[in-house]
Amino acid sequence: MTDSKMLPDRPRSDGRAVNQLRNIRFENGVAPNAAGSTLVHWGNTRVICAATIEEVVPRWMKEQQVPGGWITAEYSMLPYSTTDRKARDISKGRLDGRSSEIQRLIGRSLRAALDLTKLGQRTLWLDCDVLQADGGTRTAAITGAWVALNLAIRKLGSAGKLTTNPIIEQVAAASVGIVEGRPLLDLCYVEDAAADVDMNLVMTASGKFIELQGSGEESTFSRSELDQLLEVGRTGIEQILELQRAALT
Amino acid sequence: MTDSKMLPDRPRSDGRAVNQLRNIRFENGVAPNAAGSTLVHWGNTRVICAATIEEVVPRWMKEQQVPGGWITAEYSMLPYSTTDRKARDISKGRLDGRSSEIQRLIGRSLRAALDLTKLGQRTLWLDCDVLQADGGTRTAAITGAWVALNLAIRKLGSAGKLTTNPIIEQVAAASVGIVEGRPLLDLCYVEDAAADVDMNLVMTASGKFIELQGSGEESTFSRSELDQLLEVGRTGIEQILELQRAALT
Amino acid sequence: MTDSKMLPDRPRSDGRAVNQLRNIRFENGVAPNAAGSTLVHWGNTRVICAATIEEVVPRWMKEQQVPGGWITAEYSMLPYSTTDRKARDISKGRLDGRSSEIQRLIGRSLRAALDLTKLGQRTLWLDCDVLQADGGTRTAAITGAWVALNLAIRKLGSAGKLTTNPIIEQVAAASVGIVEGRPLLDLCYVEDAAADVDMNLVMTASGKFIELQGSGEESTFSRSELDQLLEVGRTGIEQILELQRAALT
Amino acid sequence: MTDSKMLPDRPRSDGRAVNQLRNIRFENGVAPNAAGSTLVHWGNTRVICAATIEEVVPRWMKEQQVPGGWITAEYSMLPYSTTDRKARDISKGRLDGRSSEIQRLIGRSLRAALDLTKLGQRTLWLDCDVLQADGGTRTAAITGAWVALNLAIRKLGSAGKLTTNPIIEQVAAASVGIVEGRPLLDLCYVEDAAADVDMNLVMTASGKFIELQGSGEESTFSRSELDQLLEVGRTGIEQILELQRAALT
Amino acid sequence: MTDSKMLPDRPRSDGRAVNQLRNIRFENGVAPNAAGSTLVHWGNTRVICAATIEEVVPRWMKEQQVPGGWITAEYSMLPYSTTDRKARDISKGRLDGRSSEIQRLIGRSLRAALDLTKLGQRTLWLDCDVLQADGGTRTAAITGAWVALNLAIRKLGSAGKLTTNPIIEQVAAASVGIVEGRPLLDLCYVEDAAADVDMNLVMTASGKFIELQGSGEESTFSRSELDQLLEVGRTGIEQILELQRAALT
Amino acid sequence: MTDSKMLPDRPRSDGRAVNQLRNIRFENGVAPNAAGSTLVHWGNTRVICAATIEEVVPRWMKEQQVPGGWITAEYSMLPYSTTDRKARDISKGRLDGRSSEIQRLIGRSLRAALDLTKLGQRTLWLDCDVLQADGGTRTAAITGAWVALNLAIRKLGSAGKLTTNPIIEQVAAASVGIVEGRPLLDLCYVEDAAADVDMNLVMTASGKFIELQGSGEESTFSRSELDQLLEVGRTGIEQILELQRAALT
Repeated sequence: MTDSKMLPDRPRSDGRAVNQLRNIRFENGVAPNAAGSTLVHWGNTRVICAATIEEVVPRWMKEQQVPGGWITAEYSMLPYSTTDRKARDISKGRLDGRSSEIQRLIGRSLRAALDLTKLGQRTLWLDCDVLQADGGTRTAAITGAWVALNLAIRKLGSAGKLTTNPIIEQVAAASVGIVEGRPLLDLCYVEDAAADVDMNLVMTASGKFIELQGSGEESTFSRSELDQLLEVGRTGIEQILELQRAALT
Repeated sequence: MTDSKMLPDRPRSDGRAVNQLRNIRFENGVAPNAAGSTLVHWGNTRVICAATIEEVVPRWMKEQQVPGGWITAEYSMLPYSTTDRKARDISKGRLDGRSSEIQRLIGRSLRAALDLTKLGQRTLWLDCDVLQADGGTRTAAITGAWVALNLAIRKLGSAGKLTTNPIIEQVAAASVGIVEGRPLLDLCYVEDAAADVDMNLVMTASGKFIELQGSGEESTFSRSELDQLLEVGRTGIEQILELQRAALT
Repeated sequence: MTDSKMLPDRPRSDGRAVNQLRNIRFENGVAPNAAGSTLVHWGNTRVICAATIEEVVPRWMKEQQVPGGWITAEYSMLPYSTTDRKARDISKGRLDGRSSEIQRLIGRSLRAALDLTKLGQRTLWLDCDVLQADGGTRTAAITGAWVALNLAIRKLGSAGKLTTNPIIEQVAAASVGIVEGRPLLDLCYVEDAAADVDMNLVMTASGKFIELQGSGEESTFSRSELDQLLEVGRTGIEQILELQRAALT
Repeated sequence: MTDSKMLPDRPRSDGRAVNQLRNIRFENGVAPNAAGSTLVHWGNTRVICAATIEEVVPRWMKEQQVPGGWITAEYSMLPYSTTDRKARDISKGRLDGRSSEIQRLIGRSLRAALDLTKLGQRTLWLDCDVLQADGGTRTAAITGAWVALNLAIRKLGSAGKLTTNPIIEQVAAASVGIVEGRPLLDLCYVEDAAADVDMNLVMTASGKFIELQGSGEESTFSRSELDQLLEVGRTGIEQILELQRAALT
Repeated sequence: MTDSKMLPDRPRSDGRAVNQLRNIRFENGVAPNAAGSTLVHWGNTRVICAATIEEVVPRWMKEQQVPGGWITAEYSMLPYSTTDRKARDISKGRLDGRSSEIQRLIGRSLRAALDLTKLGQRTLWLDCDVLQADGGTRTAAITGAWVALNLAIRKLGSAGKLTTNPIIEQVAAASVGIVEGRPLLDLCYVEDAAADVDMNLVMTASGKFIELQGSGEESTFSRSELDQLLEVGRTGIEQILELQRAALT
Repeated sequence: MTDSKMLPDRPRSDGRAVNQLRNIRFENGVAPNAAGSTLVHWGNTRVICAATIEEVVPRWMKEQQVPGGWITAEYSMLPYSTTDRKARDISKGRLDGRSSEIQRLIGRSLRAALDLTKLGQRTLWLDCDVLQADGGTRTAAITGAWVALNLAIRKLGSAGKLTTNPIIEQVAAASVGIVEGRPLLDLCYVEDAAADVDMNLVMTASGKFIELQGSGEESTFSRSELDQLLEVGRTGIEQILELQRAALT
């Protein structure tokens, strides 16, 4: 981290305050064939989150006779989501490492939201496709996936396919980071590219952590910097949780 | 083709007349990082069409010193576009044959719309991603790709990167087919699945053909049936061309 | 299409008349381990067509309990079939798009030739490998595949594995195109490369269409040009059908 | 996390105290063709860490004219490292997601240890191959990679290929977790499988964080639990840093 | 090896004497676009051997500035060459190990036939595609590749592209094996499947060895058995060399 | 082979006599999770050989109801085993041909060592990973695999999973070659690179051959040279067999 002594009230690149989220809204039903879907608008970032249901469980669950269901996630950036066109995975012949890492994170985060034993013997797929990338796509994906998941669970419930509600946690995510010496909430792309420290928090409505991933981007951070980031992130996530709830009423 | 004697005025599955298009509208700018983009709503079918620009030409053009630029297309169905989730190409490790065929068709169709020598030494990528599939995704993709292409060309023009307008043709596409003995315009999925003959037409505003692909789906069709389908398709495409023009004003 | 005013009696590159086929002959039994095989000599184009039988149906047929059998085709150009060596698909790691498109066309065309419910629960593979490419490989492949299919069906019949003959149509294919303003039958490579319009017709002995694929190669064509091409193609296919019958007697 | 009230002095599965590391030792020079190598013995976990040097930088560095060098890491589990044989990546045709995630973590962690501009125009590869897996392979890999990196830098230095020492941080890693209500240092496999919370810390000799990844394994954790884990991890890493230094004298 | 005491004059499955070759003939020019080609008929085994020329050398030769040219071979079994259809490599996504091994053997064998420095800066591809498999496909491939190679070298010579003849050895191959206690020359498929020992010899007209690969198929063989096989093989190869020469006059 | 007249007593590059092996020792138990493992030190060549057991047989054995078990081998060079880093197979997307060939050789050689019908319905995997390459990795791999196989069979025996000992042969391998006119035993890398003839012998304690692969490396060899190589190899293998036995006591 640079030790530059920035004035704390210097405006951010897009005019926000240090602890201010970008505008976030959910456009539900964008993919009507899915069991649940939402297009998350998160500043200039846009992510399609869709939940689909397969009435089978993965082979390893069958073989090990694990009861209940499973949640699995896939994440991809559409080729036109970035300013320079991004080649499709299939053109390169392999899933890129970053996408693989992110979809594993989404899967773990959302599995913590459910009591999988109450899901029934089915797999819930959470697909997150980035339509426009301006930083924070993974936190937007997790946050939107929770909304899509709820819409799908409702649909299963209405169809009489669930005996009890399997949802046990409300889950949202936010990014925080240290940019030019200041802890910032919800980094956009230019901030993310300039960040010394980059952290993603996945938390529940009960204020607990599900995932916490902090990285000094070829740099380091101290314990007190960590504490500041956790505090900034917590307050951001509280607001996001509220927006999720509003999107489902 | 079955030789059933259907009453010509029997309503279609969705209530349309035999020569009636579904509702078609274009939601431009859906992917702002692209040079041009539109979300085509075509009945229940939805396709994201985005044009992006790379300031290089393919290797074979460089090696053979072909002047001008190139247009290439990619087509994909998002996993949640179908009622049963469709596995991603990268999960199966290969592009499926149908997608490969469709993206080649889109590319050929749009290359006919441009004087490539006036495009400059650049590649125009046309990505078509199906958000919801209800029949006619390839014709929606071609039709929308032409809109996205125009938006991108305008952007290039505004940026002073083109000396003359390379667009020489307006291009639109429609599907026609014979279902239970009747030639129908613009088949939705249930009609497509029941069709004895399935035909895709790509035509220009000047009334000429760019592509014509007719297939007796494990069946055959006569010359007079072909003539009827061409006529139904021609009138449909005339209306679609008008909607395209409206979307660009 | 160029509007050049060519004399209609100008000889073609290989001296043929505009509506004249190249020499076509079938060398049956070239691959004795196949159930049926033929090497199609079509001018300088040579395609090995072989039918093999697997006593299972594809998984999707089993799962959906579709009665009867299936036909599937694979098409490939041998590396030495072109003047510049063509790398094998496995060396490039993927089936090229053109081959994928052609093998789907062959499969659809030949499925229309059979009553699949009378084939029994088996898969008939039609492999078409191009030994020498000089234009028209896909039409030669379809035409030869029908011969190989018949040889295989005969063998199944002789072995007492069929109760009734499943063949319901005789199927042949021809290419037509517009080159320097003239509609030509059966394009060789140099004509194909120069063609403004390129069309492949798959027709039955009863004069009906199975497949019809016309493409203005980065160009367009009018309705009257289409009509001329259909007429030229029809007369060519009639001759090809006769040659097929001769090859099976 | 379960709220079981365990006695804090209950012995661990292998008899260790809650804040006690397993035995750790480094067997340097195990792969003499590498520029630097060490076999980390970490309890029953064994990881080969090898640094090799390529006198080129990645293509993107050349294209963007980024000065200095690069560090990249690869992680793999040898098939016989687990009790049930693990199929090789090449047999499955794809790198598994977990390995991809870990090798990205190793790369980021070690890049923070170096001033890349002082490395010269070369790539330092850090290969980590697990010979025996008993939990903590990623922290063993990072810790050993730092040792191998130092050996390789020494070799470069001795060969007169470096003008200044590029190493700016000493880097080590440890895992911590909450198992049956107790925060434990350095989880072995059976503890890892039973953990409610699993965290990996990568820290420097100066007590700063490089990476921090905590995950409620389909569970959640509170802020106070996080604080306890960070404290336990910090003391563990201090001991590991000392062992690294000893291994290099 | 079984210790059965067979009468030495017991006829072979196809009536041949123990040291008798199958009928071998070469049908040259089967793939006219190749620089040289031959279809080897070897009993019921049929292999297309084609030589094509690329006017570049492999990257490693350029980088290491190795003078002269290169020979590389590819081997594949066409799907209909076996009695049960063999899936294409591209369908399985990988070259099978046996094919990989055989094509490496063909390449090494033929490189020994040439003074590569006299070939000029070009690559000679030797493609061997099995049209019908009845044992001995690799020896037929090597033997035919030498014929195809000669035809290609002649063509290069006629075109004035070679200053001296690069061919330094005549190369042919034969299989030998021990079946039911008897050393046999040129095993057909049923003999090969029953063989205790299987050996492939690649030899020159000067009686020297290029390659020698013997394998106790899950069995062993003694020195005296080896000597017998070498003698049987030598006499067989002498006859094959004569047939090659006849095929080139 | 060059006909240079070298003095037979000229010392080898590493000072050995022409028929002298490098130092060979076995470090057993290097991968404790395997059923049997050994690290072969063979001069500067080091290969990890590990045997693991899967309680299933390959699909083809099940389908064809072949009794008993199976042995399969995999061979790989670790990236840091060579002086220039060798990219992993998974990075290149394909197993390289040489590795494929070697692992097939190891598998065949070891299957000859066992009565597979006495192994029970299980698969024995033999993984050979090269830690350091200095010539002779395939012969070291076969030799070490036999040791690892024995350790695994002992473990199965101790666990009461075998009724009789399935091992029927002791198997070892050595390389021989002709370098500058002299037949040499056990070639190191510099000798291997300079060899005119390269031969690998796999033999049993009873003095019989399992595999014999000789290759004139773009050269040829005579019958008398072959005889010399076989004799030099036989005496070398006798010593190696003794070292194997010592490693298992």
